[in-house]
Amino acid sequence: MSARHEGLEGVTATTTRLSLVDGTAGRLILAGYAVEEIAPRAKFEEMAYLLWNGRLPGREEFKAFRTDLASRRRLPSTTSYLLREVAARWTPVMDALRMAVATLSLGQQAAPEEQACTLVAAFPTMVGAYWRLRNGQQPLEPREDLSHAEHCIHQIFGLEADGIRTERVRGLETYLNTVCDHGLNASTFAARVIVSTRSDLISAITGAVGALKGPLHGGAPGPALDMVFEIGAAERADEVIRAKLQRGERLMGFGHRVYRTRDPRADVLAAAAKQFYASEGDRQFYALAQQVEKAALRLLAEYKPGRRLDTNVEFYTALLLHGLDVPKELFTAIFAIGRVPGWTAHCLEQLRDGRLIRPHAEYIGPVGLPFPPL
Amino acid sequence: MSARHEGLEGVTATTTRLSLVDGTAGRLILAGYAVEEIAPRAKFEEMAYLLWNGRLPGREEFKAFRTDLASRRRLPSTTSYLLREVAARWTPVMDALRMAVATLSLGQQAAPEEQACTLVAAFPTMVGAYWRLRNGQQPLEPREDLSHAEHCIHQIFGLEADGIRTERVRGLETYLNTVCDHGLNASTFAARVIVSTRSDLISAITGAVGALKGPLHGGAPGPALDMVFEIGAAERADEVIRAKLQRGERLMGFGHRVYRTRDPRADVLAAAAKQFYASEGDRQFYALAQQVEKAALRLLAEYKPGRRLDTNVEFYTALLLHGLDVPKELFTAIFAIGRVPGWTAHCLEQLRDGRLIRPHAEYIGPVGLPFPPL
Repeated sequence: MSARHEGLEGVTATTTRLSLVDGTAGRLILAGYAVEEIAPRAKFEEMAYLLWNGRLPGREEFKAFRTDLASRRRLPSTTSYLLREVAARWTPVMDALRMAVATLSLGQQAAPEEQACTLVAAFPTMVGAYWRLRNGQQPLEPREDLSHAEHCIHQIFGLEADGIRTERVRGLETYLNTVCDHGLNASTFAARVIVSTRSDLISAITGAVGALKGPLHGGAPGPALDMVFEIGAAERADEVIRAKLQRGERLMGFGHRVYRTRDPRADVLAAAAKQFYASEGDRQFYALAQQVEKAALRLLAEYKPGRRLDTNVEFYTALLLHGLDVPKELFTAIFAIGRVPGWTAHCLEQLRDGRLIRPHAEYIGPVGLPFPPL
Repeated sequence: MSARHEGLEGVTATTTRLSLVDGTAGRLILAGYAVEEIAPRAKFEEMAYLLWNGRLPGREEFKAFRTDLASRRRLPSTTSYLLREVAARWTPVMDALRMAVATLSLGQQAAPEEQACTLVAAFPTMVGAYWRLRNGQQPLEPREDLSHAEHCIHQIFGLEADGIRTERVRGLETYLNTVCDHGLNASTFAARVIVSTRSDLISAITGAVGALKGPLHGGAPGPALDMVFEIGAAERADEVIRAKLQRGERLMGFGHRVYRTRDPRADVLAAAAKQFYASEGDRQFYALAQQVEKAALRLLAEYKPGRRLDTNVEFYTALLLHGLDVPKELFTAIFAIGRVPGWTAHCLEQLRDGRLIRPHAEYIGPVGLPFPPL
């Protein structure tokens, strides 16, 4: 019997061409491109194409791909009805999303690649429809003339009179690109395990959504800005943070399990936030967040000397999404919108190269008990 | 970097007190009890209690547990509506089951143990309701006065005038007990990965159902009897089987990846089938199946000498379920009804003792590519 690997930490479960998470060097490669090289520049559609095909699309391929994706935005009528039903029961967003994703196979017996397209295209429609219903608004008709990132903003917030501002689209798109894949995290691995039985991608991504909602899953920016809101004014930063550190509390927004040095995604999103807040959003809040960050880093160095506790990706994610007016209840769902290309690309890779995933469990219970009839 | 383990074969991912799958010795222990000791004798409710609590219930505990389970058989109205909608679209059974399971969290924010009870209780209701709807019948009201196995038969077939025959209940119950857990198969492992993020059991079992429907997942008896139907008359057995072996075809119903010697579940189900067909079901078909089995084993020994190719668990499962009038389209769903206690027990064990499951992927793609703007 092999050694036991709780949590499978350090066990290499598969090869991949999708992403390289190099925690020691602080490096994230997405299908060949450093995250800081590609995420701020690419269209989200290019990222999805890249992950699925192993190369970027040419101009004509891009147009055809974008058109295909856009044509898959409409939900099956049962999915729409279900979202309406569960919104009336005040169902948590990620539960509603799991229920809705599970129904996306309705009316299609599609090839895996087509299922992947449908999934990526339908996520913003599901999230937007659900959020509007929860807020007493009607879902908006999907539109085929918008890019994926534009459509995402449209479905949640509607269009402004003059369209959607470029800086908003770029901000969201850079975020979605940045989180589109990240090695074998738990949700991605769950998707691969499911599809390793040659099941379908709808089943696999339904499982991934179920894993993503767990509080131990990294990447979702949940409470990263809570401390900024709690502090409220720059002059209170030192006092509040010092008190937290003296009570031994963890500072949300700082440190990451995988990256021992800098998390390259944090840099990309910090730059995206800076660019966004230069012309949009609540600049006063942005200034406050920067001051809180500075104080936190200074005090962490004082209280935990020798530990690398950088500002993490959740902090800048929350800062950027807050600027984009995304409510905190939607943070994990927006993360999911960004991660679907990675989840589905892993499924396609698993279907191409992988075998059934079935590890061993070491039995430590009794044996040979006699059955006593009641 | 550690060695690569495709499919994680031989990698010990966790300890467990739930089941010992000993393929070398041909032994299956369920929470202390050999499968042949407990499966033909225990009530299904006892098996679930045993897996969740690590010991069998006392008389009073059993009564309270059975009552609690029985009270959870009714589906949320959205789940019932959804089943009706998707039945009208002729959705495959396991897809419909995945969709329905995903909605079981509606109206509850329950503790994991309660979610486990709800899941076990609701599976027969979902499967029965869906099957009846697909056949143009109305779902039957859940009843609290029946045992779990009785209720399962009731939901799918309705009650006969004189109730449900004892031999039918025992046959189904022995089957459900026999398949209630089996180590870290792909669906069980998927459930553990999902819940390792501290997600909920509804999400985890939704993922498990998605994994179970894949054709590479073992245990579901799908086409195991196809050869018996194809042969049709005992005197054709030799000829048909010989032709298959000469064409290099695999004989469905023989051989298993894990068990190198005998699969103990096959013995339990062979005995259950023998007992059942002694007083119920299509005895002529049973006699034919036995003759086909004998011919297959004799010819396998001739064509593949030195290989252990016993009759597998799928063969006897199909034989027993066919006797119970379960249509082939429901085989995997009935398997799921039996496996829910194991899936949920693994989730509870993971929540108690486990940590986040996140293995490593070895990146084999390019790095450092420059991004060319479109």
